[in-house]
Amino acid sequence: MYKAPVEEIAFTLKHVAGMGEAISKGLLGDLGEDLVDAILAEAGRFAAEEVAPLAEIGDRQGARLEGGEVRLPDGWRDLYRHWIAGGWNGLTAPETFGGQALPHMLNVAALEMWNSGSMAFALAPTLTMGAIEAVSTHGSAALKDKYLKKMVSGEWTGTMNLTEPHAGSDLGVLKARAERRDDGSYRLFGQKIFITWGEHDAADNIIHLVLARLPDAPAGTRGISLFLVPKFLVNDDGSLGARNDLFCHSLEHKLGIHGSPTCTMIYGDGKFGDEKGAVGWLLGEENKGLACMFTMMNNARLAVGMQGVAIAEAATQKALAYARERTQGRAPGSSGAGMSPIVEHPDVARMLLTMKALTQGARAISYACAHAIDMSHRAADTSRHWQERAALLTPVAKSFSTDAGVDVASLGIQVHGGMGFIEETGATRYLRDARIAPIYEGTNGIQAIDLVTRKLPLSGGDQVKGFIAELKQIADDVRRSNLNGFGETAVRLDAAIADLEQATAWLIKTLADDQAAEALSGATPYQRLFGLVLTGCYLAKGGLAESADGAAENRIALCRFAAENLLAETAALRDRVVNGAASLAAARILLA
Amino acid sequence: MYKAPVEEIAFTLKHVAGMGEAISKGLLGDLGEDLVDAILAEAGRFAAEEVAPLAEIGDRQGARLEGGEVRLPDGWRDLYRHWIAGGWNGLTAPETFGGQALPHMLNVAALEMWNSGSMAFALAPTLTMGAIEAVSTHGSAALKDKYLKKMVSGEWTGTMNLTEPHAGSDLGVLKARAERRDDGSYRLFGQKIFITWGEHDAADNIIHLVLARLPDAPAGTRGISLFLVPKFLVNDDGSLGARNDLFCHSLEHKLGIHGSPTCTMIYGDGKFGDEKGAVGWLLGEENKGLACMFTMMNNARLAVGMQGVAIAEAATQKALAYARERTQGRAPGSSGAGMSPIVEHPDVARMLLTMKALTQGARAISYACAHAIDMSHRAADTSRHWQERAALLTPVAKSFSTDAGVDVASLGIQVHGGMGFIEETGATRYLRDARIAPIYEGTNGIQAIDLVTRKLPLSGGDQVKGFIAELKQIADDVRRSNLNGFGETAVRLDAAIADLEQATAWLIKTLADDQAAEALSGATPYQRLFGLVLTGCYLAKGGLAESADGAAENRIALCRFAAENLLAETAALRDRVVNGAASLAAARILLA
Repeated sequence: MYKAPVEEIAFTLKHVAGMGEAISKGLLGDLGEDLVDAILAEAGRFAAEEVAPLAEIGDRQGARLEGGEVRLPDGWRDLYRHWIAGGWNGLTAPETFGGQALPHMLNVAALEMWNSGSMAFALAPTLTMGAIEAVSTHGSAALKDKYLKKMVSGEWTGTMNLTEPHAGSDLGVLKARAERRDDGSYRLFGQKIFITWGEHDAADNIIHLVLARLPDAPAGTRGISLFLVPKFLVNDDGSLGARNDLFCHSLEHKLGIHGSPTCTMIYGDGKFGDEKGAVGWLLGEENKGLACMFTMMNNARLAVGMQGVAIAEAATQKALAYARERTQGRAPGSSGAGMSPIVEHPDVARMLLTMKALTQGARAISYACAHAIDMSHRAADTSRHWQERAALLTPVAKSFSTDAGVDVASLGIQVHGGMGFIEETGATRYLRDARIAPIYEGTNGIQAIDLVTRKLPLSGGDQVKGFIAELKQIADDVRRSNLNGFGETAVRLDAAIADLEQATAWLIKTLADDQAAEALSGATPYQRLFGLVLTGCYLAKGGLAESADGAAENRIALCRFAAENLLAETAALRDRVVNGAASLAAARILLA
Repeated sequence: MYKAPVEEIAFTLKHVAGMGEAISKGLLGDLGEDLVDAILAEAGRFAAEEVAPLAEIGDRQGARLEGGEVRLPDGWRDLYRHWIAGGWNGLTAPETFGGQALPHMLNVAALEMWNSGSMAFALAPTLTMGAIEAVSTHGSAALKDKYLKKMVSGEWTGTMNLTEPHAGSDLGVLKARAERRDDGSYRLFGQKIFITWGEHDAADNIIHLVLARLPDAPAGTRGISLFLVPKFLVNDDGSLGARNDLFCHSLEHKLGIHGSPTCTMIYGDGKFGDEKGAVGWLLGEENKGLACMFTMMNNARLAVGMQGVAIAEAATQKALAYARERTQGRAPGSSGAGMSPIVEHPDVARMLLTMKALTQGARAISYACAHAIDMSHRAADTSRHWQERAALLTPVAKSFSTDAGVDVASLGIQVHGGMGFIEETGATRYLRDARIAPIYEGTNGIQAIDLVTRKLPLSGGDQVKGFIAELKQIADDVRRSNLNGFGETAVRLDAAIADLEQATAWLIKTLADDQAAEALSGATPYQRLFGLVLTGCYLAKGGLAESADGAAENRIALCRFAAENLLAETAALRDRVVNGAASLAAARILLA
């Protein structure tokens, strides 16, 4: 059973991702390290003791559509109510509306634990937090007053309605319509698919944020507006009024996250209300809906990255526990007379250490991204720098972590041998749940396009170059540390960072030469290269940090394993970026 | 819907794997290229038109245990009967018992197509073929006469009963008991798990091959005997007699291959018959059961490798079809005004070409392994050489192909975007089915141990060295071909083969120095390295071959893509083999 790795999380936040420095600079308000520890410990307890035990039944029963209502798996309704009673929903939300205005770093760490407990369950607050952010940032004072308090408390959940059958990655072609009404409200019509927690029975109201197009809107992405559309209309006194004209038409039958209802939502079909059309209110300006979405994209993408970290952590714990207990064969050099625990077989140890390195690398990258988001809001002098850093790190955090989630979950099955393929063992659920994360909230391929075409050019390339210079400093620090335990880490980091630097320079030049197809051919390998280099560097940073928990030796050993066993891949990735495009283009005849 | 790639299969058999040469040398009897084409075409038609359409219902319904009987999914009973009516079960079986004694190469190609149609369904004949081989090789004349004809026709299916809850990879500790009876028969007692197609309603009888231990057997692997234990006893006139004392206790609930009943079998519980104990007959000698199993291990492992090839092929076809139809965004350099088919986006093209290269590489390796098996039986002068070549290739074919199956299926989901996660789309089934193949019939980690510790030392290392010399010849041929389409292929192959050569030499030396733990630490990376090098070389061999089908340009382009985009990984893998062990050993403190 999952045990929240509270110490490792706290260590990574403070000593790798930058929280310690931010606290000592006074950038996090009253938040001190002890409070951080206390919050993490309680979140970890809740995730392990209350969420995780209901994950399996959620997977097995799934959410069900019965008579137009969505029923959650047994126990989930109460679980959700306990969860909001704990005040977890409003960790980062504005204090004005009942939130705690804590840093994103802390929320991201908590999200990791909720998702390790049950990714399907954690999707509810994940979506609500995104909606809170959108309403806080773009809502009128009246909308904020009416909706935010209940959303922050979690009594009402939130959703994002973007996708339509023909409009997924390309939202410019969406067809949902919105009509203006004289009272300043709008009426919405259309169908939205893949709406996570679009309908369920755990909250009193559901606040849908819906992208739609006004009759006179320009074509494409500049003609999309964002609307707040509640399931139940809300009276001026805050009480619930009539049912709005929207409903869940069907649920998807998915590979994983079965407990999370994935809904097809119908707006304005005339099922509810006197007049056809779901009543909604504008968020932000007309036709600026996509820009409104973009303001919360970093947080949303990072939240999906946390799903990858979370699954990787849980899958690693489970596989390691099994490998310590299961005996089979005799490991080389085994001192025992009988069979060895399989963890002693080098091949199994390799799998488990790879799982650990990827998990911790993904965690560190994601927390560093959250730190950059926090600093962009709190470090007044350098907010632009941190905004860029967050923008640069977001696609790497999202893609590297979600790929790690899938890879680690798959290795976890392998460690279990035949038992791994049996559903009751529980290793399969991690792979089934994890598999969506590289796809939604922008596929990892789209993250790579974003990284290469929009993030590398930030500050004329200086943002990424400055970041690479910081990474070189870490490699130097390892060299200067003179710690034997690091083995060849410094040399390996040098080489990997040089690969990143060369690939970066090549991409920036190729884009400047207007050779988009060539640059984009290497976008995914580049993104992976970036993530691997960061994994090596952040593991090293962790190994270098003074830690009170006596785990320094372990961290150095894991760093060395990653440096000497995983980082050599960066040369191949750099090669793919700078030399791969021509053969890829030539081979397209096979796809015609 | 799956379309059997009959031309590519025939080309690979003839021009890459060696069938053309074997035919021209007269080693395959009457078999000519035209007959090969005719058989493949008919197998392809059956797989695509009759098997594939029933795959989805098999996945959805699964096999069910009802009142002690196992019910197959709707339509599968008839499908199996049609399949055996086509004579497909006895393709390689001895002619004396109604088989066609055709080469394994042809059977392996057919197996690929059955598995692309439905892996769960194809498992029935796969297991039966293994049982036929065991009975043919080790059965007494009486047993052969009584059982083989019906097994070869497919009227009776076969199973392999190895695993027990505590004995999976390590069969030495199995506990199933066998007692001698005066009439020369035995009585068996015990529980076996993970028995594929252990019970079902499509055949009149089921012939279980069971590993068990005699009362006076030595401990460990040298005390295991192999028994033939039929579901129904068979009278001397061939008619079915009493039900034997064995039954299916339960079915596993698995991630994939739902249509294939995975049974827990109970022997000798007294449920059937007057005297407790399932009646069985010895195959081979007492206490030599494991050796009997080993004689069919190459074929069985290769058959699992074909599952990987098959899933990879089917998943690639499905993803490519979707990528050609689905439009989203605008690809760089797109000439069209509107959205582009996603296949035009470089990142999607990269995924699809990677899928194609891995599929064709795995296919070529597997067919080359089958060719070696055939030659070991048919090329009298060089049978020892070919036996070793088959032994060397088997772990690579099994592991590389099954890993490719998982990786390609996962990429296939990614290509589909959000739709890929929806079960009805059908991309998930490939991943769910494929995931068992790296585990069963010896996990891929065990394949790697086998490759490094038992196969590299063959002929004092000369077998693998000779093979590497042949690969160098292919690289030279590419260089001399002077074909521009190959791009940097020759240089890339040189480097990759050099990586293989260095890693091989290091492993042989390290094993000779008795440093098993060091060698085994790199076994899995080495195995992958071997497979990647073979992929590059076999794709090159295909590109060099004269082909009448006008696809030479495509094959050269795919080879170049693999050489310039996939092969750079070999340097990292070589590095992991020769430099990875120390950091892996040091990091074991994290697993304690």
